[in-house]
Amino acid sequence: MNLRSLGEFGLIDRIAGRVAAGTGIIRGIGDDAAAVEPSPGTVQLLTSDMLLEGVHFDLTFTSPEALGRKSLAVNLSDMAAMGGRSRHFLLSLAIPPSVSLEFLDPFIGGLLDMASCHAVSLVGGDTCASRSGLVISITLVGEQLPERVVYRQGARPGDLVCVTGFLGDSALGLAELRAGLRETPAISRHLEPSPRCNEGLMLAEAGLPTAMIDVSDGLLADLGHILECSGVGAKVFLDRLPLSEYFSAEAGRLVSEPIQLALAGGEDYELLFSLPRQYLPQARQLLSARGTGCAVIGEVTEEAGLHVTAPDGSSYQPAGLGFSHF
Amino acid sequence: MNLRSLGEFGLIDRIAGRVAAGTGIIRGIGDDAAAVEPSPGTVQLLTSDMLLEGVHFDLTFTSPEALGRKSLAVNLSDMAAMGGRSRHFLLSLAIPPSVSLEFLDPFIGGLLDMASCHAVSLVGGDTCASRSGLVISITLVGEQLPERVVYRQGARPGDLVCVTGFLGDSALGLAELRAGLRETPAISRHLEPSPRCNEGLMLAEAGLPTAMIDVSDGLLADLGHILECSGVGAKVFLDRLPLSEYFSAEAGRLVSEPIQLALAGGEDYELLFSLPRQYLPQARQLLSARGTGCAVIGEVTEEAGLHVTAPDGSSYQPAGLGFSHF
Repeated sequence: MNLRSLGEFGLIDRIAGRVAAGTGIIRGIGDDAAAVEPSPGTVQLLTSDMLLEGVHFDLTFTSPEALGRKSLAVNLSDMAAMGGRSRHFLLSLAIPPSVSLEFLDPFIGGLLDMASCHAVSLVGGDTCASRSGLVISITLVGEQLPERVVYRQGARPGDLVCVTGFLGDSALGLAELRAGLRETPAISRHLEPSPRCNEGLMLAEAGLPTAMIDVSDGLLADLGHILECSGVGAKVFLDRLPLSEYFSAEAGRLVSEPIQLALAGGEDYELLFSLPRQYLPQARQLLSARGTGCAVIGEVTEEAGLHVTAPDGSSYQPAGLGFSHF
Repeated sequence: MNLRSLGEFGLIDRIAGRVAAGTGIIRGIGDDAAAVEPSPGTVQLLTSDMLLEGVHFDLTFTSPEALGRKSLAVNLSDMAAMGGRSRHFLLSLAIPPSVSLEFLDPFIGGLLDMASCHAVSLVGGDTCASRSGLVISITLVGEQLPERVVYRQGARPGDLVCVTGFLGDSALGLAELRAGLRETPAISRHLEPSPRCNEGLMLAEAGLPTAMIDVSDGLLADLGHILECSGVGAKVFLDRLPLSEYFSAEAGRLVSEPIQLALAGGEDYELLFSLPRQYLPQARQLLSARGTGCAVIGEVTEEAGLHVTAPDGSSYQPAGLGFSHF
């Protein structure tokens, strides 16, 4: 069986046949639109990410399963950063002649596996042919009580600047892939990020963060978004950035200034949030119950601008702020 | 000013600055996800369409404004076919180096113009670079009371098969473009389809259609979807297909069997619906109040299968069922 003989509607049926039952779905795949029931009293949270072959991923680096998981993970991470509960998603796929069913089947498998882990359901989308590379566009719908949603605005002077997990591993993994390495801990973090869904939800439902974002463009760029939206500044201390053991041991072998990977590498998919100081013990407890670290990397300031302090107390000028297309 | 110097976030700000205020929006462009308020008691309707340069559109045929309008129109048409009220949408754009701000500005203008006409608001999305063609992916969110949503299932033996407007003009327009013609009525219908938003909404809110779909893949293919979902068959009469004066006069000059364009050409973006016979006067009245025709092209049958009858009473075998990717 190949894609051409299966056809567009055959492919849709093949995907639909693998989708597990979900909640709140009145009509899933197979109509002009999906129909879903919002939970009473919630606001709906909507986020989209598009991934292009040759821009966001390289099929010589990633397995189809890992690509499927990551395609959904980057959207789940956005939802986590709002403190939302992810519920349903739409998948649009543009498939070039070079991509076979032998690729698509495990790709969908990885995607639905990630969906199942986070209790979200595929309810619709679009499939078409592509004359160039594979294009994956996902829209994720989640929900939360209005008073529990956490925006980028809301950071206040005196709040701590906190981040979950470790920074820089994903960028190190990409550098390793480009250098010809395969199967290192950092490469796993790059190809298969774990979105902090439960962490975002728990922090939001406990009412702890004043602002939150996920680190996708890079720590400095994403912190910049929070500061800009909140109308505040921040100071960040380089020696407080959470770095994994693997990163500390290996990054220096491959790149001349490893800290740049942690500051601006991007694709960490960790949660960056501002937190009133008195909530730190509670936040740490919530996160450690999930085995997730919480590093305090700085403090929000009334004075605008982002100041980075080197370990010797001097002011550090980062080489770049993070990833931007074009 | 060019796209490179504007940057990804500059482009997002430029688009956000042009978006008109909308209702039900707690947070639009500029966070990890948009936050919108569903109307109490409604189900949320979600639909996505992805358009690729070289597959769905040809930049030598379309103006940027028209492409912007059509990108949203195809989604609005899906929502109309559910009987839904469109409210918010997300736009994901992958932009190749060949596409300039001089193209993007009027493209966004056309898109927001269509949005404004149908009272829908752009609330988020994604922008990135493309190494090949322009990719446009839109997800539209609408809503309706659960008992008013119209699905593809629900057609019953004895129901009339009805379609709004005219069929075949869009496919004729595409054939004309490929033959080197420009600016004909059929080309306008191809490049700038008018989604039947109000028609779909009014029919649904009056509780008239038992099943509905929009004609995007072609009449026979889309009627086939209704029949399959409803577990019924239908007979359709060729001499009842609604053809525009322009189509009747011109199609025969360009193609050998014009009726094939009306049966299987696709991209008509008219509404195809099954209707209990007693509701026909009311449906006609609702539609004619908007200046929209309503043709009865056949009848739903208990016996499965789709039978097309030629004007001489003989059975007609269509050459193709409609458009399918791959």
